[in-house]
Amino acid sequence: MASVDLNADMGESHGPWVMGQDSALLDVITSANIACGFHAGDWDVMAATMRQAVARGTGIGAHPGFPDLQGFGRRRMQISGDSLRNLVAYQLGAAQAMARAAGGAVRHLKLHGALSNMSAEDAALARAAYEGALSVDPEIIVMVLAATAQQEAVEALGCRWAGEIFADRAYNDDATLVDRSQPGAVIHDPALAAERMVAMVREGAIIAESGKRIPAPVDTICLHGDGKTALEIARTVRGALEAAGIALEVFPGRG
Amino acid sequence: MASVDLNADMGESHGPWVMGQDSALLDVITSANIACGFHAGDWDVMAATMRQAVARGTGIGAHPGFPDLQGFGRRRMQISGDSLRNLVAYQLGAAQAMARAAGGAVRHLKLHGALSNMSAEDAALARAAYEGALSVDPEIIVMVLAATAQQEAVEALGCRWAGEIFADRAYNDDATLVDRSQPGAVIHDPALAAERMVAMVREGAIIAESGKRIPAPVDTICLHGDGKTALEIARTVRGALEAAGIALEVFPGRG
Amino acid sequence: MASVDLNADMGESHGPWVMGQDSALLDVITSANIACGFHAGDWDVMAATMRQAVARGTGIGAHPGFPDLQGFGRRRMQISGDSLRNLVAYQLGAAQAMARAAGGAVRHLKLHGALSNMSAEDAALARAAYEGALSVDPEIIVMVLAATAQQEAVEALGCRWAGEIFADRAYNDDATLVDRSQPGAVIHDPALAAERMVAMVREGAIIAESGKRIPAPVDTICLHGDGKTALEIARTVRGALEAAGIALEVFPGRG
Amino acid sequence: MASVDLNADMGESHGPWVMGQDSALLDVITSANIACGFHAGDWDVMAATMRQAVARGTGIGAHPGFPDLQGFGRRRMQISGDSLRNLVAYQLGAAQAMARAAGGAVRHLKLHGALSNMSAEDAALARAAYEGALSVDPEIIVMVLAATAQQEAVEALGCRWAGEIFADRAYNDDATLVDRSQPGAVIHDPALAAERMVAMVREGAIIAESGKRIPAPVDTICLHGDGKTALEIARTVRGALEAAGIALEVFPGRG
Repeated sequence: MASVDLNADMGESHGPWVMGQDSALLDVITSANIACGFHAGDWDVMAATMRQAVARGTGIGAHPGFPDLQGFGRRRMQISGDSLRNLVAYQLGAAQAMARAAGGAVRHLKLHGALSNMSAEDAALARAAYEGALSVDPEIIVMVLAATAQQEAVEALGCRWAGEIFADRAYNDDATLVDRSQPGAVIHDPALAAERMVAMVREGAIIAESGKRIPAPVDTICLHGDGKTALEIARTVRGALEAAGIALEVFPGRG
Repeated sequence: MASVDLNADMGESHGPWVMGQDSALLDVITSANIACGFHAGDWDVMAATMRQAVARGTGIGAHPGFPDLQGFGRRRMQISGDSLRNLVAYQLGAAQAMARAAGGAVRHLKLHGALSNMSAEDAALARAAYEGALSVDPEIIVMVLAATAQQEAVEALGCRWAGEIFADRAYNDDATLVDRSQPGAVIHDPALAAERMVAMVREGAIIAESGKRIPAPVDTICLHGDGKTALEIARTVRGALEAAGIALEVFPGRG
Repeated sequence: MASVDLNADMGESHGPWVMGQDSALLDVITSANIACGFHAGDWDVMAATMRQAVARGTGIGAHPGFPDLQGFGRRRMQISGDSLRNLVAYQLGAAQAMARAAGGAVRHLKLHGALSNMSAEDAALARAAYEGALSVDPEIIVMVLAATAQQEAVEALGCRWAGEIFADRAYNDDATLVDRSQPGAVIHDPALAAERMVAMVREGAIIAESGKRIPAPVDTICLHGDGKTALEIARTVRGALEAAGIALEVFPGRG
Repeated sequence: MASVDLNADMGESHGPWVMGQDSALLDVITSANIACGFHAGDWDVMAATMRQAVARGTGIGAHPGFPDLQGFGRRRMQISGDSLRNLVAYQLGAAQAMARAAGGAVRHLKLHGALSNMSAEDAALARAAYEGALSVDPEIIVMVLAATAQQEAVEALGCRWAGEIFADRAYNDDATLVDRSQPGAVIHDPALAAERMVAMVREGAIIAESGKRIPAPVDTICLHGDGKTALEIARTVRGALEAAGIALEVFPGRG
């Protein structure tokens, strides 16, 4: 039977500022990417989020980002490979500790925001980030944007990994995302998103806007929790996958 | 044969700002307390410091502090027990990761600055901090200021610990430090510091200014590295201990 | 005719994190206390908030706080008088610049959170904070918690000032706030809050829970914008004051 | 008689971390570029530095940079024009306040680090930064890297400005700096630096490595204070200019 994981970013509140709908999302997802205090989250938010994830049996991931709270890690920053290794190792360690204190463990790592975007374009940068993570935990499963330089990096490293696609984004024929400035780039219709996800999981391929199939490792689907539509999409995608007889479970990891 | 550990704070540079004389101190000490990025240090400084400590075989400690770079963690801050647990767990996790990436491991934890001062006066606060550390690593050795509320906390917790005295500070009859505003509070004479340390290690007691002996767990001696005198004191203390036939080695931990 | 000012804290969002209902509150208040980026706000939030305030003709105030985003400036921190002078001067300057860039000017200053609480208890600390502000702008109007050490400080300094009372807090007989742990400490009933405010403005006195009148400079009323009730209280208080024939206008400043 | 200004970056310490030799440099320079707390400096360092500059009669400049202490503002960051306007306005305001509190005033502004490098290549970015400053003080003198996009921006804006050259860097034929990876890119010989500066000031031109003269607004010379050589270069350049009968004084500003 086919199976797939559903993941979402969580623990993105900071101090008194609340972000996202973590509790509602935890009913839908199987893996949580938890912010590590650099672009979002803090030690208290992490502790609470880890406890929630452990209580639900959700797969726990570290979600490191750039040291840029005000920009939410979405601004590109210049960084050397060495410093990136250290930046990722530090945040992963913090996440491991907070998970352990909550009775759980970090099993995967996913890069956030601009750090993810830059790594999706530059395999050397992705490799540096992942080396930082593997230097801390050689068994960690690296979640990569399928068919990008991130995937190239994990394949070269020979580590455990999982491929991710987006529930709410249209793809170009080369597996890159349609630019947000284009009409249809972001999918707002829950039914459409759900139908696409079922097809992509079944076919093991990214389906581009043109209809083109690009074979890809569809191990996990990225869902969002900001805004009512996002949560509705998340629930609809989950419902459709279940209705299609696809098992929803934490990805085992490739490699 | 009597033995004792020599410890010092390290990795307190930040970005382009250099602090301390870590390389020189590493020739003297047996245990290093490494800043975790909150009051000093950063991911790159930690990585470099961990590598140095691993290369020398120095015992590695996490040295968490308040989130206050500008105040170097020396300003008292209000903090709840829950938040303190999380604050310490986070920093310990970051230190563990950086140690692991450098091929080493964190074996002890020591609180920094105002956090240490507050915990030395308030056993409940000390306990919260140490619970945070133990929730991440139940085997960690907690370094405490001998004969303070910190010691009270580790004894109540039943965890592994080690007692610390200062090479360059005078003590009152109740084992508290003579206030810095008093003459003689800080010892600047290397020979005097060395003589006192040999006596305290041999007798297993803090020797107050008055000459009074206060039995205390003298497992490790805190040395400083800022300023030329500090380094000279460190070297003189080490030399005198060796000359007295006292073994210098990483503390095994009590409890 | 009697008149009073209505003030509220604003510009407390940070990066992607939204806080408060600034637009709605601006319809109610006459003076805005704008966060300066240390406990809340940032350069972009300040710019947007200043533009809104200028567009509505709202009196603009700088609202400096402790450098503690995660704690929202609500945690007490140890600070010297000298450093506090500098801390307040820095934040006031930033606010002046952002106001000027938006076509306005800062006319008052109000301390935030723990910094305000500490200053309300310690006239020397309050004085240091206000000296910092006056060293930048000798004409600035300092908003003080009426009948506290803050008022003592401005009277001793001989600067311009305005006295503030809370719309939603009960008072003890010595003009301090009833502790939040006591029943009735926080007033949730809009009608009750409104009635009390009309009476206090008319009588120029704080009315304690016991009914005791404490003569006080009632120049401005502090309203809140977090939560639906707060906004309802704000609107009801404003309506009741208008109905009572009390003019709502920016305070002229005493002294 | 020819005249020129000598400038240097100052106030780059942070909390307990000392950087630079500000006192020694103040004996040499006529204008100081003072860090504003984002890439270096803090409210206390700024206050002390402003007092020193005021006491010596040094021309005071705000020296804004990216919000990146760990990277010292030397890492390029993505930033929108709007946010850059706000970032510069905020830091300028803080500097104005600290100058005023010290009895002085900010008369010029110079961009720091990566923000300066990016603006030297991109006139639109430079323009946004300078608009931020001018929105706070329309009379401020903008210090630009001569013959770069920074100069283009101030000429388009029609504001007051001054052109800057480096004492210790070699120039290409198009007035850009020789890349640091090339031999001779950085000038370490005080006599050579001094000779070049006298010639450039006299000729009102940048003299490239090839000997080519590029007419340029030589209003101020950038000196450094880090390291013994830098200070020796600074002193030697000053001595040579004086010996050549060139007046050393704060630049009046063009435009």
